[in-house]
Amino acid sequence: MKENKIDCNKTKISISEMVLPNHTNNLNTLFGGKLMYWMDMAAGICVYKNTKKMSVTASVDNISFKSPVYKGDIVTIDAFITRVFNTSMEIYLEATTQNRKTGKSIISNNAFFTFVTLDEKGKPTKSIEVTPKSDEEKKLYDGALRRRQLRLILAGKMKPEEADELKSIFD
Amino acid sequence: MKENKIDCNKTKISISEMVLPNHTNNLNTLFGGKLMYWMDMAAGICVYKNTKKMSVTASVDNISFKSPVYKGDIVTIDAFITRVFNTSMEIYLEATTQNRKTGKSIISNNAFFTFVTLDEKGKPTKSIEVTPKSDEEKKLYDGALRRRQLRLILAGKMKPEEADELKSIFD
Amino acid sequence: MKENKIDCNKTKISISEMVLPNHTNNLNTLFGGKLMYWMDMAAGICVYKNTKKMSVTASVDNISFKSPVYKGDIVTIDAFITRVFNTSMEIYLEATTQNRKTGKSIISNNAFFTFVTLDEKGKPTKSIEVTPKSDEEKKLYDGALRRRQLRLILAGKMKPEEADELKSIFD
Amino acid sequence: MKENKIDCNKTKISISEMVLPNHTNNLNTLFGGKLMYWMDMAAGICVYKNTKKMSVTASVDNISFKSPVYKGDIVTIDAFITRVFNTSMEIYLEATTQNRKTGKSIISNNAFFTFVTLDEKGKPTKSIEVTPKSDEEKKLYDGALRRRQLRLILAGKMKPEEADELKSIFD
Amino acid sequence: MKENKIDCNKTKISISEMVLPNHTNNLNTLFGGKLMYWMDMAAGICVYKNTKKMSVTASVDNISFKSPVYKGDIVTIDAFITRVFNTSMEIYLEATTQNRKTGKSIISNNAFFTFVTLDEKGKPTKSIEVTPKSDEEKKLYDGALRRRQLRLILAGKMKPEEADELKSIFD
Amino acid sequence: MKENKIDCNKTKISISEMVLPNHTNNLNTLFGGKLMYWMDMAAGICVYKNTKKMSVTASVDNISFKSPVYKGDIVTIDAFITRVFNTSMEIYLEATTQNRKTGKSIISNNAFFTFVTLDEKGKPTKSIEVTPKSDEEKKLYDGALRRRQLRLILAGKMKPEEADELKSIFD
Repeated sequence: MKENKIDCNKTKISISEMVLPNHTNNLNTLFGGKLMYWMDMAAGICVYKNTKKMSVTASVDNISFKSPVYKGDIVTIDAFITRVFNTSMEIYLEATTQNRKTGKSIISNNAFFTFVTLDEKGKPTKSIEVTPKSDEEKKLYDGALRRRQLRLILAGKMKPEEADELKSIFD
Repeated sequence: MKENKIDCNKTKISISEMVLPNHTNNLNTLFGGKLMYWMDMAAGICVYKNTKKMSVTASVDNISFKSPVYKGDIVTIDAFITRVFNTSMEIYLEATTQNRKTGKSIISNNAFFTFVTLDEKGKPTKSIEVTPKSDEEKKLYDGALRRRQLRLILAGKMKPEEADELKSIFD
Repeated sequence: MKENKIDCNKTKISISEMVLPNHTNNLNTLFGGKLMYWMDMAAGICVYKNTKKMSVTASVDNISFKSPVYKGDIVTIDAFITRVFNTSMEIYLEATTQNRKTGKSIISNNAFFTFVTLDEKGKPTKSIEVTPKSDEEKKLYDGALRRRQLRLILAGKMKPEEADELKSIFD
Repeated sequence: MKENKIDCNKTKISISEMVLPNHTNNLNTLFGGKLMYWMDMAAGICVYKNTKKMSVTASVDNISFKSPVYKGDIVTIDAFITRVFNTSMEIYLEATTQNRKTGKSIISNNAFFTFVTLDEKGKPTKSIEVTPKSDEEKKLYDGALRRRQLRLILAGKMKPEEADELKSIFD
Repeated sequence: MKENKIDCNKTKISISEMVLPNHTNNLNTLFGGKLMYWMDMAAGICVYKNTKKMSVTASVDNISFKSPVYKGDIVTIDAFITRVFNTSMEIYLEATTQNRKTGKSIISNNAFFTFVTLDEKGKPTKSIEVTPKSDEEKKLYDGALRRRQLRLILAGKMKPEEADELKSIFD
Repeated sequence: MKENKIDCNKTKISISEMVLPNHTNNLNTLFGGKLMYWMDMAAGICVYKNTKKMSVTASVDNISFKSPVYKGDIVTIDAFITRVFNTSMEIYLEATTQNRKTGKSIISNNAFFTFVTLDEKGKPTKSIEVTPKSDEEKKLYDGALRRRQLRLILAGKMKPEEADELKSIFD
């Protein structure tokens, strides 16, 4: 069966949430764990919409918290697939927060998640291919390999000296 | 101050949810009340994103349930403003459900919600204007007046015989 | 099998909720979507208690929001069946809110929901009959037919000119 | 100010809940902690409806679990005040469960909760008086004193030998 | 099969929760029902960790609320088995609350829960034995029998005059 | 003021959760986003218990998902502080899952979170110092600096060639 090739930007999905009292911590800002919950949901929806396969979170590679999100703000999370490896794929997530009082929007968070797609028996399976088109997408596509090597090193499945792509950023 | 005029299609926002066990009733389908909760959230986000004002739900005029939504399906709710009245505005919501097993998408639900925008003291206030462009938008724009008359009749604030727009559909 | 005839007022059930921080929006009032969630639950309980059959929400015909419900208020939702059609039935819901500070109660919301009862295979099935007794119940019983015609028109399943009951209110 | 005397049976309130997947444990039955949550809510609503005062849970004296509650069952919790002490009052709660499959109802749980009413500064305050009328209510009214003595003994605020009412049941 | 004997203090497990806005009532303190929910969860985890059997809540014998728990406080619930009867066992729970502002910890609540362990068919079954070692544990072990007699009396399964252990505390 | 020095192993806290239907995805396993939610809560509790200061999540550096967690399993999350930087600190989290059917426990997940402690005005502030004692703790303490350099590079706040510690692992 020929593989299904999709442009990265065609894989993008978007979810929005309004920060209710229910979602806040004791500083009246969005509880970090709740944002992670929404991000995992967004990544899962992105994978399913594009692959029509079940999937599970394999790792979270980085989530940054650049500025606080306040009660009443609107959080929009965009998610798209940056690169597909054998049975896993990397999803890039960007959270844009519109401030309730000023109406201004800023990028408050971004993250890289890795998901594994599964066949009907729950075994990891290859699904689609994605192709980067814009410069931004190409940069993320190339970075995905370095992040994957880093992940394998952290998991003890690769020796640092074998991580050629990752090493090259220090040269 | 000149009013802010926006094309209807520019007011559209979209949220997506994956139906988890947490959201289902005892038939393994999405609990109706949970869908209404998501719709109210989507409508509130749509109003805020476009008006930058606080708002409250004034009425729900109709929600249809055309086909069941199953556990594991992805529900995407699109919301846009169809018409602005004095201090209220009508939002049209359409839920598209992608079936987990078949991967096919259908329009499972649609609804009309009315919201009132508030100023900083919590008083109803006029905000933006919207302009329909497509035929579909124009049809919804015209229908909004009839739905409003129906609402006023149901609330006992208008006599049926004064509802000229509404009456005309029976001629 | 002879049909089970019940007086409308015998079908009434009641639920109460205290508005916790968990249920509020950013104005410290009850989030509209949460009230709808409770109403759908109340309607479902009402149908099950009376028919002993599973059921699903078929449509929400109107929900009015007459006055805000504040954090700490007690919301009591009464639900009863106004009229049974072939496999569907209309439920009238009335939410009474007792204000935390004044102790006074007002009717804050009312709504009409339509549910379909299902047999064991999940197919729509006829269940009970209800009989209106009080003037209020008779008025709601008669109105149910008009609301049903309106619903069928909105769903494109009936032509406006065929909706005799509905047309008559404009004469 | 003369105290407000109310018949016990006039203090009764009722809430109903449908057991959704969301509420179950890993045996497909209602999670015990969720029932306690509903009972505390019902008791709080009962106290507020009758006293119009804020209140807090002071103790739970007994909750029995007589028979399992299954997914899909309807749980109705009745709560009324059995006796008022100085600033505290005892609430009796009875949960009736209607089985989804058989349609039959049984008393699945009962419980005694003690609440303290508070004035506007959050200090314990006396509120209403209640009067038992039926034999059942009188029995609960008398028992309340014994349960209170037991509570004081357990809290180390009363010596067993001083608990005259409680001792008498062993004679 | 020889029974599994465990020292009481070896059965202890601990859970911690931060009181978020989501958990509070309208006094900005922890909603009592939420604490009960956490306690039931802690007791269930304690039973499972020690017996590796499924279990259900059989009764709650007492929960005291000694001091309010505020938004932002950290609640730590320790749970251990005090005594095993035939197919039931008593779990003692102690909630320690660390105040957000002062950093000081106090015992805010304690409780006795009774659980029944089940075999694979859901029938009550005997599991482990526990042995008290410290004075505190021995006191709880002895008290467990009295609390059990009290429970049987309340359930109408034992006559007060037969409750020898319980009677003895009044002598 | 002299800094408060604490041994790393003294900073450890632990939370346990039972995986209820409420927490699962459509594969009957724990929803990844829910685990992240619990981890963020555990990290926040760990920071507060040790510093008595408010804090916010600054970044999630890695979360691994080594094996699925099933409905009914018990998840215990241990969290301790590995190293304190200026106003931030790294928390290491390890989730141990006890399988419901086999009773066996495995390390299912681990993660590194970075938190920033805040003073009363919400400004980042230095709090405690931690000292590694065991070999494991020393390894994590050393690694923390490399993970921090990686984070700064990813955030564009450090040039790769300046990250001496990080570079050294590739030699």
